[in-house]
Amino acid sequence: MINKLISNIQKTGAPIVVGLDPMLKYVPEHIQKQAFAEYGETLKGAAEAIWLYNKEIVDHVYDLISAVKPQIAMYEQFGIEGLIAFQKTVNYCKEKGLVVIGDIKRGDIGSTSEAYAVGHLGKVQVGSNAYYGFNEDFVTVNPYLGSDGVNPFIKVCKEEKKGLFILVKTSNPSSGEFQDRLIDGRPLYEIVGEKVAEWGAECMGDSYSYIGAVVGATYPEMGKVLRKIMPKSFILVPGYGAQGGKGADLVHFFNEDGLGAIVNSSRGIIAAYQQEKYAKFGAEHFGEASRAAVEDMIADISGALQSR
Amino acid sequence: MINKLISNIQKTGAPIVVGLDPMLKYVPEHIQKQAFAEYGETLKGAAEAIWLYNKEIVDHVYDLISAVKPQIAMYEQFGIEGLIAFQKTVNYCKEKGLVVIGDIKRGDIGSTSEAYAVGHLGKVQVGSNAYYGFNEDFVTVNPYLGSDGVNPFIKVCKEEKKGLFILVKTSNPSSGEFQDRLIDGRPLYEIVGEKVAEWGAECMGDSYSYIGAVVGATYPEMGKVLRKIMPKSFILVPGYGAQGGKGADLVHFFNEDGLGAIVNSSRGIIAAYQQEKYAKFGAEHFGEASRAAVEDMIADISGALQSR
Repeated sequence: MINKLISNIQKTGAPIVVGLDPMLKYVPEHIQKQAFAEYGETLKGAAEAIWLYNKEIVDHVYDLISAVKPQIAMYEQFGIEGLIAFQKTVNYCKEKGLVVIGDIKRGDIGSTSEAYAVGHLGKVQVGSNAYYGFNEDFVTVNPYLGSDGVNPFIKVCKEEKKGLFILVKTSNPSSGEFQDRLIDGRPLYEIVGEKVAEWGAECMGDSYSYIGAVVGATYPEMGKVLRKIMPKSFILVPGYGAQGGKGADLVHFFNEDGLGAIVNSSRGIIAAYQQEKYAKFGAEHFGEASRAAVEDMIADISGALQSR
Repeated sequence: MINKLISNIQKTGAPIVVGLDPMLKYVPEHIQKQAFAEYGETLKGAAEAIWLYNKEIVDHVYDLISAVKPQIAMYEQFGIEGLIAFQKTVNYCKEKGLVVIGDIKRGDIGSTSEAYAVGHLGKVQVGSNAYYGFNEDFVTVNPYLGSDGVNPFIKVCKEEKKGLFILVKTSNPSSGEFQDRLIDGRPLYEIVGEKVAEWGAECMGDSYSYIGAVVGATYPEMGKVLRKIMPKSFILVPGYGAQGGKGADLVHFFNEDGLGAIVNSSRGIIAAYQQEKYAKFGAEHFGEASRAAVEDMIADISGALQSR
C-alpha cells in the first residue's frame, strides 16, 4: 500500500492528503436541510449530512490528490450512525482510487491491539468466513504502550500489505509536555522515532517502509531531525493551514527524492468556502471552493519543494 | 460518577471490575451455534454471539461487582455490527446498576478529542436536539498528546459528572520502552502521574477525583509510588489473573481507607469455564463459572487488604 501511495503521489504530483473531518458547523445549510428533511434532526440525519458533504468534496478533489484521512472521532461522536457514514466514506474514497488513511490513533496491547488491527486493516474470522471490518489502507497508531501495542498492527500490515503512521511528534501546542522531555539528553520523540525506523525496517515496500510516522507541520526543526532518524519512513504531516504550518516549513520533511512526506489539510480544504479567500464560490458551490484550496495547497508545497 | 463507583464498591465490598472483552474463542459453542443459526457465520452472527455471551455473564455477576469494563476493540473488530453489540452491552450493564468504564484508550487533540468525549461520555448537538452516542460512565484515555488531548475530555466530564482513567503505567511487558525512560532522573510514568493529579484536582467528587489513572497490576512497586503521587485519583488496575497479578501485589494500589483502586479481570472471569479450576461447571454453565471466579477474586483481594 505504500507503493500505491507513492504511485498516487507521482501520478498527481501532489503529496497531499485531505482530512475528511466533518463537523456539522462546516456542512452548508442546504446539505443539512436535505439530510434533516429525510431523517429529521437525529443522529441518522447528522450522519447523512456529513456523508453527503464528504461525497461532494471527494467528487471535486479526488483527481488532484493522493489520499484522504478521515478522522474517525468526527464520525464516532454520532454513535453507530456516524460510524456507518465513516464506513461509506472509506469505501467511496477507495472506489475513487484514493489511498485511505484511517486517523484512528488506536493503541492497546496484545490481543486488543490485534483486534483493532483486524477491524481496521485486516479480516476477522467468523466461523469459516473472514470479513473486513472498516478496511482502511493505513491507520494512525499511538506508541505509548510500546512494542506490545505496535507489533500486532505490524503483523496484520504484513499480511495485508497495508501500513501505519505512528505518532511521533504531534502538531498541537502541548505535545511537548511529554514528547519533548529529555531522556539521556534527547527528547522522547526522537526515541520514538528510532523505534519507528526499527519497526519499519521489517516491512519495506519498494523504496519506503509500510510503517510511517506522524510529525506535525508546526515543528519543522524537529521534522528535520526526525527525517534523518527515519530515512525510509513516510511522514504524515498534519498541522498545515488552519493549525499554522506553511509550505516553506515543510521542505525538511521530504527526502531529496521529493518523496517521504504527505501533508494533510482538513478544515483548510473541506471548509474552504467559509474562508474569505474562497467566499466567492458561496456555500452552494463548496466543492469547488475545496478544489481551489487544494490547487493552492499543491502550488504552495510544490513551489517550496522546487525552490529549496 | 466517581461517587457512584465508590458507593457500588462499598455496597458490594468488591473493588472489582469485570472486563467484558469477548473473543469468539471464549464464547461457548452452544451460544455460537444459536447466534449463527439466526444470522449465519456473519459479522451480525458474531456480534449476536458476543452479546448473548456478555448478557449471560452479566446476569450471573452483576450483584457481586461494582463495574464492568468493555474493551471496545473486541467489538470494533466486527465493524458496525460489533459496535452495536458494544452499545447494547453498555446499556444493559447500566440498567443493571453497574458503572461502565469504556476501555477505549482514545486520545487526540482539540476538537477531535472533544468529539471522542462527546461520543462516549457526553451529548452531541444535532440541530435543536442533543443525543448521547455510546454513553459510558468513564473512559480510558491515552496521554501521549498532553493537555490538549485531555482537557476536552475533562470539560465533558465536568458537564456530565463523568470520569476518566488516564494511562500512566500499562500492564504489558514492553510498557517500559517509553514509560520507564528517565527524565531528570525520574521515569516518564511518574511525570504523567503528576499530571493526572493536577488534572484531577480540578474535578473532585466527594472524596476522590473524577480523573483516575491506569496502572498495571504487574508493576506493584511502581503502583506504590504512583499511589502517593496521585492520592485523590482512583487507580484502575488491569493485569490481575491471566496477566500474572495477584491479590497480594495489589494492596499498595489502595489507600488506607480501603478505597482508591479498582481491579480488573477480563479473561480470568469471562472465560473462567475454560480453566481447569472451573471446568466442573461445563461450557453450558459458563455464567456460573464466571460467578465462582468473581467470588474467588473478591476473596483474594479482600484477604490481601485485610491482612496488610
